[in-house]
Amino acid sequence: MSKSFLMLVTVAVVIASTSAFAVTDQELRAKATAAGLQALPSAPPAPANNPMNPEKIALGKKLFFDPRLSASGVISCNTCHNIGTGGDDNLPTSIGHGWQRGPRNSPTVFNAVFNKAQFWDGRAEDLKAQAKGPVQAGVEMNNKPEQVVATLKSMPEYVQRFGRAFPNETDPVTFDNTAKAIEAFEVTLTTPSAPFDRFMNGNNKAMNAEQKEGLELFIQRGCASCHNGVNIGGQAYFPFGLIKRPDADILPPTDKGRFQVTKAPADEYVFRAGPLRNIALTAPYFHSGQVWDLKQAVAIMGTAQLGVAIDDAEAGKIATFLGSLTGKLTNISYPMLPVETATTPRPQF
Amino acid sequence: MSKSFLMLVTVAVVIASTSAFAVTDQELRAKATAAGLQALPSAPPAPANNPMNPEKIALGKKLFFDPRLSASGVISCNTCHNIGTGGDDNLPTSIGHGWQRGPRNSPTVFNAVFNKAQFWDGRAEDLKAQAKGPVQAGVEMNNKPEQVVATLKSMPEYVQRFGRAFPNETDPVTFDNTAKAIEAFEVTLTTPSAPFDRFMNGNNKAMNAEQKEGLELFIQRGCASCHNGVNIGGQAYFPFGLIKRPDADILPPTDKGRFQVTKAPADEYVFRAGPLRNIALTAPYFHSGQVWDLKQAVAIMGTAQLGVAIDDAEAGKIATFLGSLTGKLTNISYPMLPVETATTPRPQF
Repeated sequence: MSKSFLMLVTVAVVIASTSAFAVTDQELRAKATAAGLQALPSAPPAPANNPMNPEKIALGKKLFFDPRLSASGVISCNTCHNIGTGGDDNLPTSIGHGWQRGPRNSPTVFNAVFNKAQFWDGRAEDLKAQAKGPVQAGVEMNNKPEQVVATLKSMPEYVQRFGRAFPNETDPVTFDNTAKAIEAFEVTLTTPSAPFDRFMNGNNKAMNAEQKEGLELFIQRGCASCHNGVNIGGQAYFPFGLIKRPDADILPPTDKGRFQVTKAPADEYVFRAGPLRNIALTAPYFHSGQVWDLKQAVAIMGTAQLGVAIDDAEAGKIATFLGSLTGKLTNISYPMLPVETATTPRPQF
Repeated sequence: MSKSFLMLVTVAVVIASTSAFAVTDQELRAKATAAGLQALPSAPPAPANNPMNPEKIALGKKLFFDPRLSASGVISCNTCHNIGTGGDDNLPTSIGHGWQRGPRNSPTVFNAVFNKAQFWDGRAEDLKAQAKGPVQAGVEMNNKPEQVVATLKSMPEYVQRFGRAFPNETDPVTFDNTAKAIEAFEVTLTTPSAPFDRFMNGNNKAMNAEQKEGLELFIQRGCASCHNGVNIGGQAYFPFGLIKRPDADILPPTDKGRFQVTKAPADEYVFRAGPLRNIALTAPYFHSGQVWDLKQAVAIMGTAQLGVAIDDAEAGKIATFLGSLTGKLTNISYPMLPVETATTPRPQF
């Protein structure tokens, strides 16, 4: 083989391997940064008004897994925010007390600390405010704060643990502190070192060619206009159907989203942009949970929010990029829960 | 103080500290052994027709925690046999598909491998036979074997894991193998080193004075006649109400126990003697789950099975001994479950 032929082959290979992208890795990173996409910090942020300590995190973990926080003794936080399945329940909308179906798809608890606010309509300002909702919701855990406190106070191990988690408090076993401890645990549920994060931190090989192509399309097509920040979403509110309203099964007319919180007409059908980390693990999609296919969800977003037709090939590439947002949870040991006593309130069905 | 006075005090203290027992520790151990009570072996037994391997145990653990084994996608083995609460659900009878209430109290999965047979009526000969029951029961997980297999085959990670757990099989993802893998995991759920076990293995200080007194009473009163073996029960069948039938709330006339399996008139209201390990963690008691207090359960057993009135003080001591049967589960990490795909059957409510 001649030397000039070899050179020609080399040039052709280089062209072939880069032709899929108009940009270098460094340029792609710069574009992503300019679009507001951020790598996950190595340590989770400290929540406001809730100083962390290891005792509080350990207590919160027990509470998160304890079905006795529900009136029935059947449903725990982990039922709908299952640590094993991406931090959600893989159902269209959650099943709660009495087998009632909740109104909206359960959002993942993973990295939720990075969201601007909690719930699809942002009605809870942080995770400790969020934690109080499902415990009391009739269609979820159907419990009452005083019943939760009576349940926890009936178990000496919980009383001791609250004392250690909230030192210097005279009556540490409260509903407020229950929510704070749950927040403390949930804050630890971050999934660092996703391929996207490693790429953003300088490892060019962390993402493959199709993921990079998907990332570029994600920016080019405008997805990153709403889905940005550390959580690639979860930072702001937008009307679902900004350009064209989706069908009623995907956007049911009865759920007016953030309007139900603010009562402002401009907030009709407004929802928090979904945080996209670990999205490949958390089908079905949208607040209504009717779309199971991530590619289809991408295409719907194109039509509804951007007014662009994202074809199947492009939607596939964007979905592949979204798969690079799947991170790993640190090893979670299953907690052994405190033992009930004679005074523990009995399950109510 | 005179030397003779000190000797007198010493003698008095020795008498006081031993007067509660007629027997020495060594004699008590011998009595317990003679009554058929056994310490938990350090390693669980190998189940029949199901060779163990680490891949099979790891697969079984994922299956045990996976709610997608149920038709609804809501209920996993761990829902009713919660690793965090003594291997059961702390409910009178379990809540299953559609919020239906099951007919009997959920038995603990801990040490279940040591039972002669599974279920209150012994209708499953081992854990792999047992595992198939709740998955299909309409009031529990309400699923069908072919649907379970379709669900598992839809997830590449499960297909790979079945292949590794059942090497040399051409079609490893089967309902039979699902049950075998679950058995493999459940076999590991033993709770060694309970105070009773350490006492039986020669550590006199592992049980305190009241626990030892309770153990002696447990033997003297005849409890050990039925509750013996490694699991301190779970070895044989007896009529509930051998001497005197309990009230209908505790022994509902509609549930004829083992009779429903054998159709033999002699088996009417016959149940497997409850295995008593970790019983302090698994209230409420009996197959009907109507008794929450362990002391009360002991007293009922005295009247119903032994024809003796066990007074409150004695019942308290026996309950204290039963507390010495609480062991520790080895640290269980929460498993990350395989990701669903487009072909995964959707939840059915």
